[in-house]
Amino acid sequence: MSTDIKTPSESASILTNLVLPGETNMLNHLFGGELLARMDRISSIAAKRHSESFQVVTASVNHVSFNMPVPLGSILKLEAKVTRAFSSSMEIYVDVWILDPISREEIYTNNGIYTFVAVDEYNRPVRVPQIQPETDLEKERFEAALRRKQLSLILAGKMKPSEAHELKALFQE
Amino acid sequence: MSTDIKTPSESASILTNLVLPGETNMLNHLFGGELLARMDRISSIAAKRHSESFQVVTASVNHVSFNMPVPLGSILKLEAKVTRAFSSSMEIYVDVWILDPISREEIYTNNGIYTFVAVDEYNRPVRVPQIQPETDLEKERFEAALRRKQLSLILAGKMKPSEAHELKALFQE
Amino acid sequence: MSTDIKTPSESASILTNLVLPGETNMLNHLFGGELLARMDRISSIAAKRHSESFQVVTASVNHVSFNMPVPLGSILKLEAKVTRAFSSSMEIYVDVWILDPISREEIYTNNGIYTFVAVDEYNRPVRVPQIQPETDLEKERFEAALRRKQLSLILAGKMKPSEAHELKALFQE
Amino acid sequence: MSTDIKTPSESASILTNLVLPGETNMLNHLFGGELLARMDRISSIAAKRHSESFQVVTASVNHVSFNMPVPLGSILKLEAKVTRAFSSSMEIYVDVWILDPISREEIYTNNGIYTFVAVDEYNRPVRVPQIQPETDLEKERFEAALRRKQLSLILAGKMKPSEAHELKALFQE
Amino acid sequence: MSTDIKTPSESASILTNLVLPGETNMLNHLFGGELLARMDRISSIAAKRHSESFQVVTASVNHVSFNMPVPLGSILKLEAKVTRAFSSSMEIYVDVWILDPISREEIYTNNGIYTFVAVDEYNRPVRVPQIQPETDLEKERFEAALRRKQLSLILAGKMKPSEAHELKALFQE
Amino acid sequence: MSTDIKTPSESASILTNLVLPGETNMLNHLFGGELLARMDRISSIAAKRHSESFQVVTASVNHVSFNMPVPLGSILKLEAKVTRAFSSSMEIYVDVWILDPISREEIYTNNGIYTFVAVDEYNRPVRVPQIQPETDLEKERFEAALRRKQLSLILAGKMKPSEAHELKALFQE
Repeated sequence: MSTDIKTPSESASILTNLVLPGETNMLNHLFGGELLARMDRISSIAAKRHSESFQVVTASVNHVSFNMPVPLGSILKLEAKVTRAFSSSMEIYVDVWILDPISREEIYTNNGIYTFVAVDEYNRPVRVPQIQPETDLEKERFEAALRRKQLSLILAGKMKPSEAHELKALFQE
Repeated sequence: MSTDIKTPSESASILTNLVLPGETNMLNHLFGGELLARMDRISSIAAKRHSESFQVVTASVNHVSFNMPVPLGSILKLEAKVTRAFSSSMEIYVDVWILDPISREEIYTNNGIYTFVAVDEYNRPVRVPQIQPETDLEKERFEAALRRKQLSLILAGKMKPSEAHELKALFQE
Repeated sequence: MSTDIKTPSESASILTNLVLPGETNMLNHLFGGELLARMDRISSIAAKRHSESFQVVTASVNHVSFNMPVPLGSILKLEAKVTRAFSSSMEIYVDVWILDPISREEIYTNNGIYTFVAVDEYNRPVRVPQIQPETDLEKERFEAALRRKQLSLILAGKMKPSEAHELKALFQE
Repeated sequence: MSTDIKTPSESASILTNLVLPGETNMLNHLFGGELLARMDRISSIAAKRHSESFQVVTASVNHVSFNMPVPLGSILKLEAKVTRAFSSSMEIYVDVWILDPISREEIYTNNGIYTFVAVDEYNRPVRVPQIQPETDLEKERFEAALRRKQLSLILAGKMKPSEAHELKALFQE
Repeated sequence: MSTDIKTPSESASILTNLVLPGETNMLNHLFGGELLARMDRISSIAAKRHSESFQVVTASVNHVSFNMPVPLGSILKLEAKVTRAFSSSMEIYVDVWILDPISREEIYTNNGIYTFVAVDEYNRPVRVPQIQPETDLEKERFEAALRRKQLSLILAGKMKPSEAHELKALFQE
Repeated sequence: MSTDIKTPSESASILTNLVLPGETNMLNHLFGGELLARMDRISSIAAKRHSESFQVVTASVNHVSFNMPVPLGSILKLEAKVTRAFSSSMEIYVDVWILDPISREEIYTNNGIYTFVAVDEYNRPVRVPQIQPETDLEKERFEAALRRKQLSLILAGKMKPSEAHELKALFQE
């Protein structure tokens, strides 16, 4: 497995697709669960491209809000990028836009943050390349990824709050 | 719309189903996104049964961890219950178990917490019945639901931390 | 393979799910064939849980009537239980209810009776645990299962009518 | 609606398709329920072509046996024909053959008998054309269809056994 | 593998199926791409039946025109036949008809011409039986298949125009 | 409807997705028909974004060759762009790459050329913006699109060969 450094844009993966009848409710809006599944799919592709591993598996998904309905027939565009890599895990940010068939505008709807682990054919974790953020947004998300990681470890009882330096700094501001 | 009080067990909804080839990755394990979609589906059913509204729509999903792989051919059982209702929104808890075809045991894998809003045929929010928890677990989840709601409002900038009395109490312990 | 005795409730399996657009006809009612497939799916799960075998395969389905239309968006609930076990085959009863989005009631619609055979990884039949019915309904279905088995063997030319004692008794009443 | 007489061959409908991974169990054999759904689909097409009605709906399916496994990748051929028409209902016979990828023979596997009702856009029954059987097999199935209809009415408590002349004649032989 | 001669009718394969909601656009007409996929599916079945090989793979599809919309709920009938065989490749002609639920007529809509290659389990080409056309239409398509093959080889730079005798003859008329 | 001039890049649409079990044959390679359907889907999105019309419908697809197998689990990337617009029709070019899970390279596999017509809610053609190509490749495809259009009109008997000036020039070289 490569241990090089890569940029977020090297894993950038786009999924543009229509919202079809089988994915919508009685109001003809996309089910939230279908959007979560699409976000997971494109995130896994970004993670696989970054890690070049046999397989990547979803470890967790952060809190996701659904801010607006996505009508039947909409064109939905998802873009996933690796924001930060740890030893064998990666955080992926997915941004979502819709093109409403009535308004015909590209509108930012919401985002999701997924964590994937790279594994080999025996389901054992493998090391992944580290991330070198380039743009301001990538740097901001890179920093925040560490705090999210610490919060996640604290909540899982695997880290003491006092050890989460970056997270503590945030509360002291 | 009813404004009665209901118990969590009145909305309890179970979805038992197999894990099929089209839902699995190269390691023959269920995609995380497929599990998120199934959890959303059974949660929406619990929310619809509680609210008796025309439609319910996913407002958000809490942080979800995937603790173990779910192999192809597994029997996956999801149970969703409304834990607490607010004016037009409801928090739903989904518990997930698998029956591994090798070990043949029922194993608790993980859970998800979804928030749904009840709407009428014009997508306008409608009032929903309140919840009267019965068991100890239901009471515990009922209490925690309020803290999660406050945390969510604070994060969205719609509530001041000082007003979140239940949440503050937790940190003062 | 276990040769224990089990109760019907130990295999009870529930599948609650929405009726989606891809499953409905021009009148927006569920296709009969889709209901037959869902009944087969949940019956196979009940049979697998009872037999604890590598795989179960559908041997036959009894006459099934469709008594009422199931509209798009309905919540459909299926419950399957093993009613009686023979050497390597099991009879499963599936009861079906719908929750019409207009009337909002839980209505008993119809049922299906499936027979499954438990097999190992080489598709060879394996012995399954016997059934000890508990409730009155379970006892009634347990008795009727034997008569259905005899009728099925007679129709297949594998049993003489004179040997079907339980079936004959029914006609002599 | 037409009240003409039609032959079974005028409604003959064929569905040839592959058995795909999403439709098979752990032994890579087609699920019984998937075959039931395919049989319902092609039967509904035969019924629609015969009735020329807005829609046809499944009323019942007769006892179906699954005599042999259908392996993944098989070519499955179903042929449906209306065997007899009553006022607004039709009996359809579906014959099933498989072309096993190993043996490469066309093998008769089993059949199903479905009853459909023709309805208009308000779901009200409409009259359908009568059937004039042509071949010996069509004539035999035409006769048997009446006995199946009588048996079905008796079982549903809508006909007295003494009135089922054709069915009684069968037992007196 | 057999090196016999077969007729086109020996590979004739029919796929009759409904147009379902998940396959239609905002005007409730079948997506062109779905029709291309159905044509490929039934062509592959005709090619497999002709070649009796382990697997057949799509090599190319000719220009396809979509001449009329196919409404939701239509009954769509596709018939595929091998028109000509070369060493390991076969040309398949698919004719398409629809039965519009309003007009209730069987209407010829369009056709597609696919080329498949027969392969063994290691994806290596295998020889296929030759074709003996019977009807006038089959003879006409058999002749045209050679010209299409030559045109295809010329376009791919694998044949000189001067060597394409049958194709040249056409332009000299 | 807009009558502006747009560039090809304004309609550029990307679809990155995995190849799943339900889409593959016995050799675990993607069905040709599934690729044709994906190409149609992303082309329709490019056409809809260019035309800003209520709906776009597939008019035809050019000859498509499948040059290499696409294995199960591959990441498949499709990019569609409008190459040229006529009064109400548009030519779309789709380029396809795969990322083989073994070689881990991005490989150009093949392409497809689709023609779409923009229509309003009554299925009537509407005018679409014209195309201003920017890059050398876009200019080359823009020129070739006119020749393909002429060839298509000649083949359909709607244009005399002598009127196809651009096409004739090509043969005179």
